[in-house]
Amino acid sequence: MQRINTISTFMERTPLILVTNDDGYQAQGINHLASIMKKFGNIIIVAPDSARSGAACSITPTQPVSTKQINDDTYACSGTPVDCVKIALEKILPSKPDLVVSGINHGDNASISLHYSGTVGAAFEACMKGIPAIAFSLRTHKKECDFTPFTQVIEEWVDKVLKEGLPTDTCLNINFPEVSHLSGSKVCRMARGMWHTEWLDAEKDADGRNIYTLTGTFKNLEPDAEDTDYWAIDHNMAAITPLKLDITDYDTLGKFCI
Amino acid sequence: MQRINTISTFMERTPLILVTNDDGYQAQGINHLASIMKKFGNIIIVAPDSARSGAACSITPTQPVSTKQINDDTYACSGTPVDCVKIALEKILPSKPDLVVSGINHGDNASISLHYSGTVGAAFEACMKGIPAIAFSLRTHKKECDFTPFTQVIEEWVDKVLKEGLPTDTCLNINFPEVSHLSGSKVCRMARGMWHTEWLDAEKDADGRNIYTLTGTFKNLEPDAEDTDYWAIDHNMAAITPLKLDITDYDTLGKFCI
Repeated sequence: MQRINTISTFMERTPLILVTNDDGYQAQGINHLASIMKKFGNIIIVAPDSARSGAACSITPTQPVSTKQINDDTYACSGTPVDCVKIALEKILPSKPDLVVSGINHGDNASISLHYSGTVGAAFEACMKGIPAIAFSLRTHKKECDFTPFTQVIEEWVDKVLKEGLPTDTCLNINFPEVSHLSGSKVCRMARGMWHTEWLDAEKDADGRNIYTLTGTFKNLEPDAEDTDYWAIDHNMAAITPLKLDITDYDTLGKFCI
Repeated sequence: MQRINTISTFMERTPLILVTNDDGYQAQGINHLASIMKKFGNIIIVAPDSARSGAACSITPTQPVSTKQINDDTYACSGTPVDCVKIALEKILPSKPDLVVSGINHGDNASISLHYSGTVGAAFEACMKGIPAIAFSLRTHKKECDFTPFTQVIEEWVDKVLKEGLPTDTCLNINFPEVSHLSGSKVCRMARGMWHTEWLDAEKDADGRNIYTLTGTFKNLEPDAEDTDYWAIDHNMAAITPLKLDITDYDTLGKFCI
C-alpha cells in the first residue's frame, strides 16, 4: 500500500506541484508558499478567487464553477478549495502532479479545527486522488505576516515527501506558531478540543428572523499532552500531524461486532 | 472515556433529540426521521432553509446566519448543517440534547463520499460537542422515496444509542440501500474509493472564464471487501459505520517518530 517516489525517479524529471489554499489566490500565505515551491519544480496555482474560510471538504454540486487564468501559472476559481483541486487535476494540469500543497493558511488548523478547514480539505482531496499532499497553516489572524521563519521546515518536508512519498490515503497537516524563530518541529497527534460561545448576540430582522454571527473560543481539552499539535504550537514548535482518509473508528467497530 | 446513558437515567425523563440534515427542513427524509424520533422523546428540528448538498463540515464565518421559527418544533437556518447544530445547541434548545440525528439524506454517504457530506458533518459537529450523534443516508437520488423499510433499523440504533451512549469522540454513519426489504444490517468500515470524471464539458463566459459543472462517477476500489459499507449496501444491507473525530494517522506518526 506504499507509494514511494524513489530519489532516482525524483531526479529524472522536474516535479509538478499544485499550489492551493482557502484564503484566495491573492493571499500572502499562498504567494510565500508558491515562491518556495518554485525551488522544487514547476508549479501551478489554482486557488479560490476570494477567501473561503471554513470551507472544510465542501464542494459545489448545485451551481457551475468557473476558472479564470490570471497569469502563466495562476488560476482563480469560483469554487471551494476542494473544487479547486478537482478542477486543477481534471481540467488544468498537464499531468498528475507529484505533490499538492495547500496554504499557508492565515490561522491555525490544529486539533478539531482541521475539520472545518478548507486548507486541510484541499489536501484531503488530493489524498483522495492518490497524490501526496501537505496543508500548511500559521496561528495568526493577521492578513500580513512574516512567513519566512517557516521556510526551512516547509522545505524539509516538501523535499522528504517528494523523495519518499507518503503512505496511501495519508496526508500531512503542518501548523506553525507565530514566532520569529521556531524552537523545533514535532510529529504529533491532533489534540482533543472544543469550541464554545460561538455566536454573537442575536438581533431580529424585519421578517422576524434571528441573526447571529459566528465567532467562538477554542478550549484545548488536554493542554498538558506533549504529544499533541496544540502543545507543540504552544511551545513555539512546528506541529506535523499525519492524517488519514479512513476515519472508521475500528475500536468501536470491534465492540459492536462482538 | 466512555459516556454511558444508563437505562435508569434514560427512563427518568423524556429525551431531547435534535433533528437536522443537509437537504433542508422541507425534505422528505428529515420529516420521516422526525416522525420516528417523536416515539423516543421531545424533538426540535433545526435544519437548512434549502438544500446544502456537499457542505461537509463547512461553517459560515464571513457573513451572518439567520434562523426562522417555522412551527412549534421546527427552525429553518440560512447556514450550513454544522451551523444548524451550533446554533441549535447554543441558541435554540432548552438544554443539551441526548441525541442528534441527521438525515435521512437523499443520496448515500458511504466510503470517501462521507467527507463531502453535510449530513455527516452535522453528526460530526454534535460529536465535537460531546453529544451522541447518528447520520442516516439512503442510496437514492429521488426527491420522493419510500423510507419506511428503514424505520426498524433506525429505531434499533436510536434506542441503543439513547440507552448506552456512544464512546467519546465517536459518531455513527448509517447508510441504506434503496430496497423495499433490507437483507440485514452490517457493522462495517469505510470502503476505499475514488471519484473520477468529475466535470462536465467546459464553456467560456463573456469574461473568458471557463465554466464547469460538478458531476462524477464513483469507483469502489475494493468491491469484494465484505467488511465495507459499500459491500453491505451493494448487498441490500444497512451499513453501520462508527466514525472518529481523531483522524491522526497513528501508524504513520509512529514511523516518522522513529
